[in-house]
Amino acid sequence: MTITIIGIGLIGGSMAITLKENGFADKIIGVDQHQESLDKALRRRIIDEDMPLREGVENADLIILATPVDAMLQLLPQILDMLTDQVLIEVGSTKERILEKVKDHPKRKNYVATHPMAGTEYSGIEAAIPNLFDGKFTVICDGQDSDPAAVELVEKMYRSMNMEIARIDAKNHDVHAAYVSHISHISSFALALTVLEKEQDEKQIFELASSGFASTVRLAKSSPDMWTPIFRQNRDNLLDVLDEHINVLSQFRSFLIKNNFDGIHQAMEKANRIGEILDK
Amino acid sequence: MTITIIGIGLIGGSMAITLKENGFADKIIGVDQHQESLDKALRRRIIDEDMPLREGVENADLIILATPVDAMLQLLPQILDMLTDQVLIEVGSTKERILEKVKDHPKRKNYVATHPMAGTEYSGIEAAIPNLFDGKFTVICDGQDSDPAAVELVEKMYRSMNMEIARIDAKNHDVHAAYVSHISHISSFALALTVLEKEQDEKQIFELASSGFASTVRLAKSSPDMWTPIFRQNRDNLLDVLDEHINVLSQFRSFLIKNNFDGIHQAMEKANRIGEILDK
Repeated sequence: MTITIIGIGLIGGSMAITLKENGFADKIIGVDQHQESLDKALRRRIIDEDMPLREGVENADLIILATPVDAMLQLLPQILDMLTDQVLIEVGSTKERILEKVKDHPKRKNYVATHPMAGTEYSGIEAAIPNLFDGKFTVICDGQDSDPAAVELVEKMYRSMNMEIARIDAKNHDVHAAYVSHISHISSFALALTVLEKEQDEKQIFELASSGFASTVRLAKSSPDMWTPIFRQNRDNLLDVLDEHINVLSQFRSFLIKNNFDGIHQAMEKANRIGEILDK
Repeated sequence: MTITIIGIGLIGGSMAITLKENGFADKIIGVDQHQESLDKALRRRIIDEDMPLREGVENADLIILATPVDAMLQLLPQILDMLTDQVLIEVGSTKERILEKVKDHPKRKNYVATHPMAGTEYSGIEAAIPNLFDGKFTVICDGQDSDPAAVELVEKMYRSMNMEIARIDAKNHDVHAAYVSHISHISSFALALTVLEKEQDEKQIFELASSGFASTVRLAKSSPDMWTPIFRQNRDNLLDVLDEHINVLSQFRSFLIKNNFDGIHQAMEKANRIGEILDK
């Protein structure tokens, strides 16, 4: 099977590596607006060939759209226009706006909306790695609006990557993603800014930072170009979660102001339950 | 040299492993209010012998106090009362209150205030590991109030653990610790609570959590018994940093409300600088 991947970055590049390595793809074609990324992907043998968009679409059995989510809004209808019987998926971190955009397209059934829930704080083809998806979940959204054979092919592909599959409607996907992914990024960016502002006066401060701090601000290294459009498309859900998060922090603040350390202890005990869930 | 470690948990236990392994200690004596922890430490050969407090102090050349910081306030003057010419250090995450407590003690010069900036989200003797301190920084606070020979011994010990040494006064230590350690814990606890509250209705939510979420909430697994007294002793500094952090989050909130995605992009770009600092 020939797979064309549009957007050869962290996700697209890592999918290319995985799908070539496990034999699901015989050939990987890369499409990217940056020729430099394609050249790097060719040199690392992550793709077999690079092509312009239309040619890449025409030569594929399966097309994976892996650009930032703002570009998806533009590209998805254009690619659907080009399709004959190929299957098209995208791997964006938001779903409602993207699905809305193509809901009446005559080729809608060729398209399957997916979100492999994996990533790192790095971006670009340099960041593409094997095993990024191993053991993780992929969401398939609104699968009932896609051709069953297309969904079957896509599920087969994700299973070949050793991923588990969850089916969620687009609306719920975006709420869940706000809770388990998008707010973590906001929190991490904000924590980095809080400490960086202090650091302007105190150069020594980071010598003292231990691994706990590094873990909490890791996501603050993430790409603004990738995350700004995600936050834009999921603004309403993110605002809800951010309000709740600020409320919880304000509760901690209120405990501190009132010297209510029993309250803080109890809140931390409740929070500890996250360990049982994540370590299980 | 015989070293007595009071409080055989994550930090005390990991120091015992390291100092025995590198030959700095010939013998490690363990003191702990929980006999079960001492028995586990004996079985794992982390300590050579366990003793009651007074006997442990009398038989040591160097004493390391590694209890939670509330217990330190009680134990430190008691141990100083027992000293002849032994050197005593503590390894607490706060410094101002602890140093204030013993500032006029006749044996003050036998005591060196330190903070090895290392840890994990786990606690207790089960969590003790080798190499916890490798390449990390230790702070020595207000060293001018300690006997120079005592400081020299303590620096030699930390260097034997492959740690770098920073000298900071207690007041600045507590401000810095609030920025690079304590606020990360509050942020992580609060993020866990935010998502756990949602999860009461939506069991599936955690299946979708990727490694980024796990990284950001990792510290929320930390022990409330250890952290409540740290927050109590560093309350004022922590409140300052928490206010700043809530302000930065409120700025993100305001950008979202106003659909000011350029503002969000710029804030994230500024936050990205944390990567240059942490990865250098």
